[in-house]
Amino acid sequence: MATCHLSALVLLVLSSHGLAKDNGKKPEVKKVQTLSRGWGDSLEWVQTYEEGLFKAKNSNKPLMVINHRDDCPHSQALKKAFAEHKGIQKIAEKFILLNIVHDPTDKNLLLDGLYVPKIIFVDPSMVVRADIPGKYSNHRYTYEPTDCDLLFENMKKALKLLKTEL
Amino acid sequence: MATCHLSALVLLVLSSHGLAKDNGKKPEVKKVQTLSRGWGDSLEWVQTYEEGLFKAKNSNKPLMVINHRDDCPHSQALKKAFAEHKGIQKIAEKFILLNIVHDPTDKNLLLDGLYVPKIIFVDPSMVVRADIPGKYSNHRYTYEPTDCDLLFENMKKALKLLKTEL
Repeated sequence: MATCHLSALVLLVLSSHGLAKDNGKKPEVKKVQTLSRGWGDSLEWVQTYEEGLFKAKNSNKPLMVINHRDDCPHSQALKKAFAEHKGIQKIAEKFILLNIVHDPTDKNLLLDGLYVPKIIFVDPSMVVRADIPGKYSNHRYTYEPTDCDLLFENMKKALKLLKTEL
Repeated sequence: MATCHLSALVLLVLSSHGLAKDNGKKPEVKKVQTLSRGWGDSLEWVQTYEEGLFKAKNSNKPLMVINHRDDCPHSQALKKAFAEHKGIQKIAEKFILLNIVHDPTDKNLLLDGLYVPKIIFVDPSMVVRADIPGKYSNHRYTYEPTDCDLLFENMKKALKLLKTEL
């Protein structure tokens, strides 16, 4: 299981809040299950890691893998910041985009462990870019919502490295 | 590459038709990318094979994997029949559902080759049910739109085998 950066206490409070709200009668509305999941509804997302690798190779674009969880407040907060960051949303068009809530079986994506949120870049040549981390030494590929400018820079770096290395 | 049951000629005609239509000016409408992809919009779908296996195991429901392609008319015709078959749509609630347009890397799903459409059942015990085929000896796990009643029976069989074997 991936761990989410969140204390159990906060999770408990949030859960209780959810339960309290559910006591009131409300009509059951079925949410549409989208591939974007709110990370950028106007962007194009691939469904699986295999599809991402295939399209990265075919289009010569880097693949950006966002591993997150619906029940992880850190993931949700990062998603909100990601979706609202105009620079990220614009530059994201130059990537093959994948967001997942279950870890792919490919061990190359494991890097420094199972945790969420975790953002990894993969070159069209299928190489996982371990050299594009965030700023935390314990979880090198995670980002806080306030790190979106660094993430934006890392996205530029992924594109730049791609050009200089080819 | 998976092969689609379709002659190149038909594909060519359909493509030409598409091109002809595109000559007229029409506003660009961005389609919402859903997980159901039209196979049953009111049903719950998982995103990846890994997620499907995890949920099948946790819920003790069989996993139903539908491998198809957006550009394969056989897949599209089966999808229409599948979505309109009330029995299938009802019984499908008892399954963990996955539809994919790229082959998962798990070789257990390969069975008698790469082709689409292909529908495979996987037990919560992670066993691929090679013993629940369609009716074609060359592609044992494919279905034509007119085979939806057989598919419905196979779905019942997958549930029944699950009960008797546990």
